[in-house]
Amino acid sequence: MTATAATAATVLPIRGRLRPLGLGDVRITGGFWAERQEVNAVATLAHIEHWLEREGWIRNFDLAVRGGLAQERRGREFSDSEVYKYLEALAWEIGRNGDAGLESRFRAVVRRVAAAQEPDGYLNTKFGRSGQAPRWSDLEWGHELYCVGHLLQAAVARARTRPGADDGLLEVARRAADNVCETFGPDGIDGLCGHAGIEAALVEFARTTDDDRYLAQAALFVDRRGHGRLSDVEFGREYFQDEQPVRQATVLRGHAVRANYLAAGAVDVAVEQKDAGLLDAVRNQWQNAVTRRTYITGGQGSRHQDEAFGGDWVLPPDRAYSETCAGIGSVMVAWRLLLADGDPRYADLIERTLFNVVATSPSADGRSFFYANTLHRREVGTLPDADRPSLRAAASLRAPWFEVSCCPTNVARTLASLTAYVATSDDDGLQLHQYMPGTIEHRRADGRELRVTVTADYPHDGEIRVRIEGDETACDTDVPWSLSLRVPGWAAQGATVTVDGHTRPVGPGYVTEQRIWRPGDEVVLSLPMAPRFTYPDPRIDAVRGCVAVERGPVVLALESVDVDGVDSVDELRVDTGRPPRLSAGRVTVSLRRVHPNDHDWPYRTDEAESVPALGEELDEVALVAYHAWANRGPSTMRVWLPTTADRRTPDLKEEAR
Amino acid sequence: MTATAATAATVLPIRGRLRPLGLGDVRITGGFWAERQEVNAVATLAHIEHWLEREGWIRNFDLAVRGGLAQERRGREFSDSEVYKYLEALAWEIGRNGDAGLESRFRAVVRRVAAAQEPDGYLNTKFGRSGQAPRWSDLEWGHELYCVGHLLQAAVARARTRPGADDGLLEVARRAADNVCETFGPDGIDGLCGHAGIEAALVEFARTTDDDRYLAQAALFVDRRGHGRLSDVEFGREYFQDEQPVRQATVLRGHAVRANYLAAGAVDVAVEQKDAGLLDAVRNQWQNAVTRRTYITGGQGSRHQDEAFGGDWVLPPDRAYSETCAGIGSVMVAWRLLLADGDPRYADLIERTLFNVVATSPSADGRSFFYANTLHRREVGTLPDADRPSLRAAASLRAPWFEVSCCPTNVARTLASLTAYVATSDDDGLQLHQYMPGTIEHRRADGRELRVTVTADYPHDGEIRVRIEGDETACDTDVPWSLSLRVPGWAAQGATVTVDGHTRPVGPGYVTEQRIWRPGDEVVLSLPMAPRFTYPDPRIDAVRGCVAVERGPVVLALESVDVDGVDSVDELRVDTGRPPRLSAGRVTVSLRRVHPNDHDWPYRTDEAESVPALGEELDEVALVAYHAWANRGPSTMRVWLPTTADRRTPDLKEEAR
Repeated sequence: MTATAATAATVLPIRGRLRPLGLGDVRITGGFWAERQEVNAVATLAHIEHWLEREGWIRNFDLAVRGGLAQERRGREFSDSEVYKYLEALAWEIGRNGDAGLESRFRAVVRRVAAAQEPDGYLNTKFGRSGQAPRWSDLEWGHELYCVGHLLQAAVARARTRPGADDGLLEVARRAADNVCETFGPDGIDGLCGHAGIEAALVEFARTTDDDRYLAQAALFVDRRGHGRLSDVEFGREYFQDEQPVRQATVLRGHAVRANYLAAGAVDVAVEQKDAGLLDAVRNQWQNAVTRRTYITGGQGSRHQDEAFGGDWVLPPDRAYSETCAGIGSVMVAWRLLLADGDPRYADLIERTLFNVVATSPSADGRSFFYANTLHRREVGTLPDADRPSLRAAASLRAPWFEVSCCPTNVARTLASLTAYVATSDDDGLQLHQYMPGTIEHRRADGRELRVTVTADYPHDGEIRVRIEGDETACDTDVPWSLSLRVPGWAAQGATVTVDGHTRPVGPGYVTEQRIWRPGDEVVLSLPMAPRFTYPDPRIDAVRGCVAVERGPVVLALESVDVDGVDSVDELRVDTGRPPRLSAGRVTVSLRRVHPNDHDWPYRTDEAESVPALGEELDEVALVAYHAWANRGPSTMRVWLPTTADRRTPDLKEEAR
Repeated sequence: MTATAATAATVLPIRGRLRPLGLGDVRITGGFWAERQEVNAVATLAHIEHWLEREGWIRNFDLAVRGGLAQERRGREFSDSEVYKYLEALAWEIGRNGDAGLESRFRAVVRRVAAAQEPDGYLNTKFGRSGQAPRWSDLEWGHELYCVGHLLQAAVARARTRPGADDGLLEVARRAADNVCETFGPDGIDGLCGHAGIEAALVEFARTTDDDRYLAQAALFVDRRGHGRLSDVEFGREYFQDEQPVRQATVLRGHAVRANYLAAGAVDVAVEQKDAGLLDAVRNQWQNAVTRRTYITGGQGSRHQDEAFGGDWVLPPDRAYSETCAGIGSVMVAWRLLLADGDPRYADLIERTLFNVVATSPSADGRSFFYANTLHRREVGTLPDADRPSLRAAASLRAPWFEVSCCPTNVARTLASLTAYVATSDDDGLQLHQYMPGTIEHRRADGRELRVTVTADYPHDGEIRVRIEGDETACDTDVPWSLSLRVPGWAAQGATVTVDGHTRPVGPGYVTEQRIWRPGDEVVLSLPMAPRFTYPDPRIDAVRGCVAVERGPVVLALESVDVDGVDSVDELRVDTGRPPRLSAGRVTVSLRRVHPNDHDWPYRTDEAESVPALGEELDEVALVAYHAWANRGPSTMRVWLPTTADRRTPDLKEEAR
């Protein structure tokens, strides 16, 4: 199965169970994600350019031309990549809506980037000039190859959305990629980058340019990793996945963004090279990471120290790192595996991660962001500075910019290209993975056109209505095709599908209707949207005795601003005897205030001393969607709620009242 | 109340509720701590010198004389301090046992250090020479003042144990201290060190030299901190306590070693300068740190990232940092507050920290160490390298040396000077704080000699027998004096004291007998040594639904090597219906194996799916003293044990069997 080169998709594998549809095929016309795409287009992109200029990260390219870079360069060693991710976001957004203003901003930045490229194709503002460290002298931390990766991704996005454009970005990228292949090819430096990312980029660049040299280089980088070629660092070589070859590793580990970017690149290489062993390895790593190292939000990375995955079952909510970029990396991996395998669990994780990590990072106005996405805020803590970059994981609220500011540009490029994750096709028909109101029009290689309209108010409502469009002619054929709708894993009970007035229960997975479709035919998927308690695996020590509340794909949180007279959500327990309910459009639960005993020493021999007295009942307390928390000023917040039953032995329960 | 200058104690305050006794007054003659002091003297000190030489950290001083330091210097910026801490350990040990071999090693190292001192008194191998960064150019990370602090502490230890010795160390220290006072005095650089430590050292140096200029400099450093004079760093200024003045802070926070060293220095300054406000502030910080930010072991610091205190109640056992040096710093603070106030809670924390942090770090053979002291080891993980320094918190077992190797030398100086924490005197008599078999002979300023012998097998046994010694003449006086024995906080039930054949129950605090003592008189304190379950404050989210087991002052742990056929202690639950018991000298508990359900996604809507099935009963499983774990090869370990009752709602309990 081959994809058409012109498809404006983020990933275009040469083969696989499913074929991606692109921005030209799918349009999101309203609802949850359209709102966010609009905010991204109108507010976030300009916000990003403002900060890139303000922090001097675009100016670094000007200094490369003008001179003075060694003295005046600003930003961390990877700041070039933020400019490239901004270009990528612009490219997708221009492809989506064709705004002339964005087009001119795109071209202006490309010109400044292009001017800084050196004659041999090398392009990086941090290394190689007089007064700077030599090129490739710090593969562990220098991020030079990582930056090239993002340059290539920007060029790929542009080439797929505006093929043949005369802005020159593709040529800049090609020269940079050639320089990498010459420098790091089989006869070049036997090295690799401390931060994975260029692997997937090189494969996509190979797909875009139809030049397999880039694929070969990507495969080389994947194979080189895991043999200790990088120097050891304080966090150990696991930090950049150099302690064990990709083919041998059994779980995602180390720095969570690097781990996911590497896995994405490994899938790309495996698919192109029909490398079943490599694909199996990543599949297995994903499986184990999802079952043992992933937060309920889909977030990954439980360690602040090295922004890394913890060990199995180490998922502390209060020290959750759950970096926005790791969530985006996880979506990249799951999407690639979905295309390769067609397993709905990949789409389930994408949905969960989009609603609870990617949607959580930006504020409602699109001008501030979470870098880390904690699941428990105990104290209001430090407020972000509106006029200065924040420390990445320090502020209580979303911050406008960070010293390490990878997340805002990553969110922007993801939202601008979100359409790519909605649907796929195969030889039998069309698969809908994510439910966003809009249209899907896909002309297949066999010339047949598949056109549907999706009507939904998801995730507020569980009814998804898919209507076959087109004139009678286009559909008038005796060849049936199949329409597949994903029933999410969380909808284990109560989902139904209605076709032709016949309703039947369906379980998680893809429900497929194969038939000769006529315009006006409708399939209605109804998902159970009653809020529910969710219980953690008992091996997750950090949330023992707690429950979460979910509704559909959305994780909910208890935020202190919703509880009168409470400073900290830690004063509250949830009564699991009373299920969460929907009340005036919000999910509510019943809480009890608790009054812990203060002691000189917090560890007691008498169990009763450690059991808090139950106080006031608080009925019908509204929860907030986790992705919407911290939009109403400083607050404390919990996703995992200790229960009133958490007071240990049953016979102590009543005594303590 | 003034202390005699000749007392060989670690801290000699000018005033306070209690007066320290020194190495000359107290002798530990056997038991738990004497064994460790012996291992320290015989094995650890030589082990340290071996590694200091091997890593080139002593050689750096030679290079300062010979030239080539800029090119050849090895070790981190604070490696000089390890040499000084080694000297301090030697000085105390020589004071304790007078070994001639140690004396000659001490003098040899002092000579090499002294030779590196510059004409103006500056002494640091990392800064100031051609090719090096200028002196005092990196106060945030350079550790120059911190290193001087440890030099002064070494000189103080020597001056108190060998007054008038001709080795020259005191003069070297004086010149370095003078250089600091000239450079950082009221008219000098308005700065301070990123790592506190010099404050306490300068006060002790003032006490030793009777020169108040050093005290004034210490007070200046204490007052300068907390106003943002240090540059901001990635971890925020809280990291080095520069975000808030010492007088205003309400809890220990930031880097746990720095926080404790600073608090120790602030108490010293407050006591010398009769600064009640400053003393109150530290007292309050200590109180809040102990009730909300301290592990059951006494360990402090719950964050790997910045080796820092977490927020209140953030005490994850699996990511516990609980650095050995932070425990030592905590002992330093508590001891100073005990001397100032006489409150038994300070001595309680010292006992707990000595038995469960300081005793945990070194291996039985004294040649490897824990840097971080986790309370839960999930996986066997990386084994330490016997031939290379380990990463500080990476290895599963104790490691021989670390890249940042502050803990081995800190343990060594603490064990060598441990005698200092045993007993104090005041105008009324003698106070025993820690129970180690040995003798206490103290001639007071009024000429009266107090002599007692302590017989005990503590903490294996709870009987502490204190016998009044001396000939009839020495004691034959009609002036009564008081003997005070600490009843630990953990002994809330069942402690008794027996005097003259009369036994009476006593509760936590100091039990004081005031009388005219005769040689041969005995006081017997009997502490309840039955093992007990201990329950955490319900606000400590990370150990909800768990219990610990303690016996006396010793925290116990479940180690996988004690359970047949179990790889991970995480497969086990403790049955709290059956109290821990003493069986053949070991503490045992009843366990149940559990069989969690594996799922594709670890968060379940159906509560029953998250409840593990109870399996095999394991009766009489032996626990290990936490300080002794990891001495029998690779293992997994838990201090906090989930209970069988942790399975949430009572009505599900039986169903799941």
